Amino acid sequence: MRPLHVHGRALPMPAVCIPLVARQADALRAEAAAAGARGPDLLEWRVDFFDGIGRTAEVVALAAELRRLSGRLPLLFTRRSVREGGQPIPLDEAQVLALVHAVAAAGAADLVDIEMASDPVHIAAARDACRAQGLGLVLSFHDFDRTPPAAELLERFRLAHRLGADLAKVAVMPRRKRDVLALLEATLQASEELPIAVAGMSMGALGAVSRLAGGEFGSALTFAVGQAASAPGQMPVDGLRAALAVLRRGSAG
Amino acid sequence: MRPLHVHGRALPMPAVCIPLVARQADALRAEAAAAGARGPDLLEWRVDFFDGIGRTAEVVALAAELRRLSGRLPLLFTRRSVREGGQPIPLDEAQVLALVHAVAAAGAADLVDIEMASDPVHIAAARDACRAQGLGLVLSFHDFDRTPPAAELLERFRLAHRLGADLAKVAVMPRRKRDVLALLEATLQASEELPIAVAGMSMGALGAVSRLAGGEFGSALTFAVGQAASAPGQMPVDGLRAALAVLRRGSAG
Repeated sequence: MRPLHVHGRALPMPAVCIPLVARQADALRAEAAAAGARGPDLLEWRVDFFDGIGRTAEVVALAAELRRLSGRLPLLFTRRSVREGGQPIPLDEAQVLALVHAVAAAGAADLVDIEMASDPVHIAAARDACRAQGLGLVLSFHDFDRTPPAAELLERFRLAHRLGADLAKVAVMPRRKRDVLALLEATLQASEELPIAVAGMSMGALGAVSRLAGGEFGSALTFAVGQAASAPGQMPVDGLRAALAVLRRGSAG
Repeated sequence: MRPLHVHGRALPMPAVCIPLVARQADALRAEAAAAGARGPDLLEWRVDFFDGIGRTAEVVALAAELRRLSGRLPLLFTRRSVREGGQPIPLDEAQVLALVHAVAAAGAADLVDIEMASDPVHIAAARDACRAQGLGLVLSFHDFDRTPPAAELLERFRLAHRLGADLAKVAVMPRRKRDVLALLEATLQASEELPIAVAGMSMGALGAVSRLAGGEFGSALTFAVGQAASAPGQMPVDGLRAALAVLRRGSAG
């Protein structure tokens, strides 16, 4: 089991991440400041929500500003595609890649999330840009409809590793409680087998338990709600942090 | 998934139980009053810890008194054998059965725990005594050394049902994280398959997560520490209740 590292520093296991989902720059600034005050371990800027995503220089400057406003929390820079649960944006994939390059080159974020289903050439380019600047690369997979079998989930984690991820993330929707256990099983096995950090989450109310208990089974990252959720099943950050503290004390024996 | 019922009333899922483990009557009275004030759903009197276990009339009167002192919380009456993690006592199995009979006949407890590995004739007698007086019967299995495979755990739950349990309880020690998932899997399957309530717990620090998350996978009962733990891995009741509240809100969607 490997915690998420940012610039060589290990974050708590699991690291608690608040997504920023405002559409306007001023609202984003307020969201980052408010989120930073609630004690998460990092923030995620879901840039696909941002109305100004097409203005590269503004995105780069704003990313750096969000990090400052949060009290210098590590920032995960994420453009989620529509296919994997994100917002429609006016950029094509090559333009998204250029945006990632610009953010990485400026060192305006600490981690970048790319979907592992992206064009492998784009993934390699993003990976190289991240490595050159010391950013971590998250390669992610989402299924908002169902939970594939545990063996298939494990293959997603392995694929992310083969593609060069520093953290392999798998988020899937359960249809029954058994699916939640399948996700936890695959996460545990991946965390034991792979040399990188992994994160597994079972979405929705049915899977909410995975956001609290996942760290016990190797998941290095959990998302919690600051002002607004970015995916179904995220719990409010204050409650999640308190419950994690109870669990950590219990697990420390 | 069926919650634990006491006299036809469903307790929360999972019900939080504080064990009483004092050796002297006065200390037990204080323990029951203090435990009752901390908001659990029921108390368990681990009578094998009680120095006066050999004095039947005193045990019966004290059981009724503990229930009153706790604010009339339901009381689970448990003699745990040495073989399954309990204290040495000066009674033989026939005398323990007579004690259970006396407690049941007096209506001095609400639930009785008998180990499913007990003499089947004793189990049947205890079951009949409980039914005659409207008490619930918990049939339990403990392994403090290891976690048997999930299929074997499931068979323990089924056995408890065949023997007439109202709640089937399985508590086992994990040696690795995978064992915790095996316990949760077996608990989930038993809760979906059997018409009775079930409770599964993975012990020790490694399994502590099961005491919080087990209810999500069908476990109707979880034990938490009031003044002293009765088994390894139990978490303090205040923290556990707070974390369960977070989890319940998350799972409610």
